[in-house]
Amino acid sequence: MPRVIRLAVIPGDGIGPEVIAEALKVLDAAVGASGAVVSDEAVTVEKTHFSLGAARYLETGDVLTDDDLAAIASHDAILLGAVGGVPGDPRLKDANIERGLLLRLRFALDHFVNLRPTTIYPGVTSPLSNPGEVDFVVVREGTEGPYVGNGGAIRVGTPHEIANEVSVNTAYGVERVVRFAFELAASRPRKKLTLVHKTNVLVFSGSLWQRTVNAIAAEFPDVSVDYLHVDAATIFFVTNPAKFDVIVTDNLFGDILTDLAGAISGGIGLAASGNINPTGVFPSMFEPVHGSAPDIAGQQIADPTAAILSVALLLDQQGLPEAAARVRDAVTGDLASRARAASGASGADALPARSTAEVGDAIV
Amino acid sequence: MPRVIRLAVIPGDGIGPEVIAEALKVLDAAVGASGAVVSDEAVTVEKTHFSLGAARYLETGDVLTDDDLAAIASHDAILLGAVGGVPGDPRLKDANIERGLLLRLRFALDHFVNLRPTTIYPGVTSPLSNPGEVDFVVVREGTEGPYVGNGGAIRVGTPHEIANEVSVNTAYGVERVVRFAFELAASRPRKKLTLVHKTNVLVFSGSLWQRTVNAIAAEFPDVSVDYLHVDAATIFFVTNPAKFDVIVTDNLFGDILTDLAGAISGGIGLAASGNINPTGVFPSMFEPVHGSAPDIAGQQIADPTAAILSVALLLDQQGLPEAAARVRDAVTGDLASRARAASGASGADALPARSTAEVGDAIV
Ligand SMILES: CC(C)[C@H](C(=O)O)[C@@H](O)C(=O)O
Ligand SMILES: CC(C)[C@H](C(=O)O)[C@@H](O)C(=O)O
Repeated sequence: MPRVIRLAVIPGDGIGPEVIAEALKVLDAAVGASGAVVSDEAVTVEKTHFSLGAARYLETGDVLTDDDLAAIASHDAILLGAVGGVPGDPRLKDANIERGLLLRLRFALDHFVNLRPTTIYPGVTSPLSNPGEVDFVVVREGTEGPYVGNGGAIRVGTPHEIANEVSVNTAYGVERVVRFAFELAASRPRKKLTLVHKTNVLVFSGSLWQRTVNAIAAEFPDVSVDYLHVDAATIFFVTNPAKFDVIVTDNLFGDILTDLAGAISGGIGLAASGNINPTGVFPSMFEPVHGSAPDIAGQQIADPTAAILSVALLLDQQGLPEAAARVRDAVTGDLASRARAASGASGADALPARSTAEVGDAIV
Repeated sequence: MPRVIRLAVIPGDGIGPEVIAEALKVLDAAVGASGAVVSDEAVTVEKTHFSLGAARYLETGDVLTDDDLAAIASHDAILLGAVGGVPGDPRLKDANIERGLLLRLRFALDHFVNLRPTTIYPGVTSPLSNPGEVDFVVVREGTEGPYVGNGGAIRVGTPHEIANEVSVNTAYGVERVVRFAFELAASRPRKKLTLVHKTNVLVFSGSLWQRTVNAIAAEFPDVSVDYLHVDAATIFFVTNPAKFDVIVTDNLFGDILTDLAGAISGGIGLAASGNINPTGVFPSMFEPVHGSAPDIAGQQIADPTAAILSVALLLDQQGLPEAAARVRDAVTGDLASRARAASGASGADALPARSTAEVGDAIV
């Protein structure tokens, strides 16, 4: 009997379906469409597609029903493309698809680790002239901070309106993600952990984060620890990103830093992420960091690499590191061959444009 | 009778006194030490020095007394170097100098516009390989958002600790800063305003900001308006910063974006800022964006340019645009001559290092 990974697939909106089609091709190739032997185990992937996102909302008025959520939660893992309709679409005015779908899944499935690795792959051009050897991971908290939706407003629409947002941070929530980050740092060659926060202004939450890091550091004497304010961290992201190994930070700072990380590493088209529940009580969810990009949807010009690298994170999390490595090696090879094609011709512009499917096929 | 500008000078800690010494030299040169005619007006600057910061705290236990505050508030303008002691100094553990001094001044003097221009000066090297023509201004709100200090914590130090931060946003507070930003955008050639927020997650405050921008936009038909989520804005800061003209954003997003802006424009050593109360009820305060950098303090190696450019903002705000332009022209000339020296030699490393005072003298 092969091991079966029951995968919930949410292609979503915009370029989501296109990039997910390629990611699934690569997943099948990596584990073998009908049960290859991976990591000494016969593995097969059983997929259930869920039509969710702006398109589904426009059709039915539902963003994510309790039944959808229960059905998704019964799987072993989730692969998500991108969600979000055309910005400014008046029919979506009252739906916050991001909150109602993406954030609801992260919160309901207790994805407290939002794992976002950043590497500049050989051959990929960074907008930085001298980025150095960039290879770091942001461990972003996924279930607390200003994302909890505990804000509110009074006197809305009047000159006396007050709109508050509340960032909630708990010892329970901070401890578990900081511990995960220490374990990750301890497993990496450089064994370095940087806490990013804004402790001089957000003094209550900052103090909790800093004390938690200090306390857990005592259990990991091999890991060297430092601290940066979030504003200073953005400076180092552009002046010396190679200095980072593992970064642990809150939900909002992690959101901001990982888009910046995607940009400096050659584009958000390569940035993968995992929304992970390390306890395994709920399935983890893997998704490219990029959005649904409705402006280029359906044209087969989106880069599926971020979705494909999200498959590698999925395979890692499923305990199939060999298959994950095969995916990463294939991506590395493909990016290097893009670079060769570009330099052989008269410049990057001369690179023959490949369709989304051609990139997927090349990686397969 | 010459017009007298009564200036409160707070050199502060670390490199603060060194860079302020140069800024004052340049200020004197720009308006004439003893009453030159500027903008058809005879102007003289009368300076009062305030010893505030970590050093003062260590001596007296005071960060900023009510008397200090009243004395500072009676001036026409404030020039501040940098505040903050050596990180980790155990004697400063219970003092939050940033909150108690810098933020207290911004809040008490109702500095609701935190103005932070970003230009890549000719000859200055950006860490971006192809930044384009960068010339934008971030209008950061200065008296609300998560900076209000309305957080709190319970069960501190136990496994059940909960630490909350509250971001407060009011129609009153958002309206006045957005209006300032529109007026600024209308006065600039490109007439473009970008709201940066995170409306898809911070739905209450985001909605207030977005509705306020929409409402005021109707009064400024010449200004084109767009919106970016803060995470996406960081991407454009490194991939296409030239696209920005005026950015309006909240206190925390503005903090993060302006450090990043400093970095891409060739270093935080060049980034100036004004904490402005446009009503004139309280004096405005001008300061370099950089911190006190205790590690390089007293060595005469800090770049005073950011402090000097803060003097230009001060002169603008005091209605002396010709003097401000003279300062900027001198800075531009100095930066260009640095670039010439670097390229004439065998590279930037061969640039003869100048002391803080030598840079100030050159600009004078
Ligand atoms: C779509 C949005 C709610 C989301 C976030 O802010 O987390 C996205 O930016 C991300 O980083 O995954
Ligand atoms: C020192 C700190 C409180 C301050 C801030 O966060 O506003 C600084 O980073 C700045 O940008 O002026």
